[in-house]
Amino acid sequence: MRFVRYGDAGQEKPGVLDTQGRLRDLSEHVGDLAGDVLADLPQTDPESLPLVEGNPRLGPPIAGTGKFIGIGLNFSDHAAEAGLKPPPEPIVFMKATSSIIGPNDTVSLPRGSAKSDWEVELGVVIGKRAKYVSEADALTHVAGYCIVNDVSERHFQTERKGQWTKGKSCDTFGPIGPWLVTPDEVADPQALDMSLDVSGERMQTGNSGAMIFSVAQIISYLSGMMSLLPGDVIATGTPPGVGMGKNPPRFLRAGDVMTLEISGLGRQRQTVTMDS
Amino acid sequence: MRFVRYGDAGQEKPGVLDTQGRLRDLSEHVGDLAGDVLADLPQTDPESLPLVEGNPRLGPPIAGTGKFIGIGLNFSDHAAEAGLKPPPEPIVFMKATSSIIGPNDTVSLPRGSAKSDWEVELGVVIGKRAKYVSEADALTHVAGYCIVNDVSERHFQTERKGQWTKGKSCDTFGPIGPWLVTPDEVADPQALDMSLDVSGERMQTGNSGAMIFSVAQIISYLSGMMSLLPGDVIATGTPPGVGMGKNPPRFLRAGDVMTLEISGLGRQRQTVTMDS
Repeated sequence: MRFVRYGDAGQEKPGVLDTQGRLRDLSEHVGDLAGDVLADLPQTDPESLPLVEGNPRLGPPIAGTGKFIGIGLNFSDHAAEAGLKPPPEPIVFMKATSSIIGPNDTVSLPRGSAKSDWEVELGVVIGKRAKYVSEADALTHVAGYCIVNDVSERHFQTERKGQWTKGKSCDTFGPIGPWLVTPDEVADPQALDMSLDVSGERMQTGNSGAMIFSVAQIISYLSGMMSLLPGDVIATGTPPGVGMGKNPPRFLRAGDVMTLEISGLGRQRQTVTMDS
Repeated sequence: MRFVRYGDAGQEKPGVLDTQGRLRDLSEHVGDLAGDVLADLPQTDPESLPLVEGNPRLGPPIAGTGKFIGIGLNFSDHAAEAGLKPPPEPIVFMKATSSIIGPNDTVSLPRGSAKSDWEVELGVVIGKRAKYVSEADALTHVAGYCIVNDVSERHFQTERKGQWTKGKSCDTFGPIGPWLVTPDEVADPQALDMSLDVSGERMQTGNSGAMIFSVAQIISYLSGMMSLLPGDVIATGTPPGVGMGKNPPRFLRAGDVMTLEISGLGRQRQTVTMDS
């Protein structure tokens, strides 16, 4: 199943796509795609639900995200490209949950941004609390998968002292969606093609098979440190091709358009603007 | 006013202390101390509210915290003690919101913890959205002040690769409270005595006047990168005397009792146990 949330920001309703990809209204069956609902998503036949007219905005496909966790340097080909050794343990950082926007919303660069960059990532949404879970059990805690653009201001992230979170947490730096795709439709989360274009130019190409730490390993690892809760989102790292790795570096400018795809998880499209 | 939330974890009700420090039930006047309520806290005379019987558990004094932000190395005397130069900009990290507990709840060290440490900090709770605010305006966005214990696993934080968040985000590592004290009762947030004892031994002594970046500066700085939202909590850094700075280092053990005080903000007391 492919779940969505549609409507104006902050007022989204739950929906689901039918077999033809048409949007159906799920709001008679569930209040929102959040909390315990994510552990037991409605199995209603989409064809039996009301069709939604028009072409509404899509919001992030889940609500109530308490943690937005990122994994750094998790692709072996990206690490090799950067001339860095694969990390011995997952590198973990946090993105502010206030950075979350819909998959096709505008990304607005903060004042003073000169080095904002893109990162297509496989997003994992937790459906059921995970604490001290084994790798073998880890995927049973997943509600579904989605695309995340881990937008990152490199100057804030690495040149303004301290921790990466500064460059990861700006408003609009966390497009999520378009869909929450349930695990039964993702045969192998470690075999998904990923790509990102900026203004029509292919920048990133990768496959989640190149992850140093698998989704199951990441969930197990994090759950040894903190409870993962329903609605938490993990962005599992990016393949080669970010702007800071280009020669010369290429960063986002107002007017750029980012398009992201992951096989089976749909497509995002964000135009870029700048905070006034 | 001194606002509290009392009752079992996850089922707290809002309350307020009267002039004698007795707990009064505020639940007829407000649903919870969260969201927009924090911008416009009820001014009801506490003496007119029902007395709460018994001695209920206190929860964190605010709900709906979307971001739990920490500021690192923010006390000049702590920096000097550690032999480090004051940072030129605030060091910013995130604590998982799932680490938040009540002020007197048990702190349970995660499996594998060998270097868990304490940090008494002045907590600032945002009441009104802040984005690109000036230092002069910053304090108008504050709902109130509270004590935070920024419990930190140093091995996770600095020896397991990557970002501090690993050691800052463990479950129970964020005691907040006992009270949300409104700004009218805090004459100067940069003149508060702070202390922390472990099992009866004074470990930390400081004053918020030694902060390198003031509360107003921190709010203004952060708001240049991200929206601060009602219920967000900022832990503004710790004075000298953490366990990792002792010679020899002294870390938390099961059975330890931490007591924290900040002038006008009350007292926390946590016993320490270890995850089985």
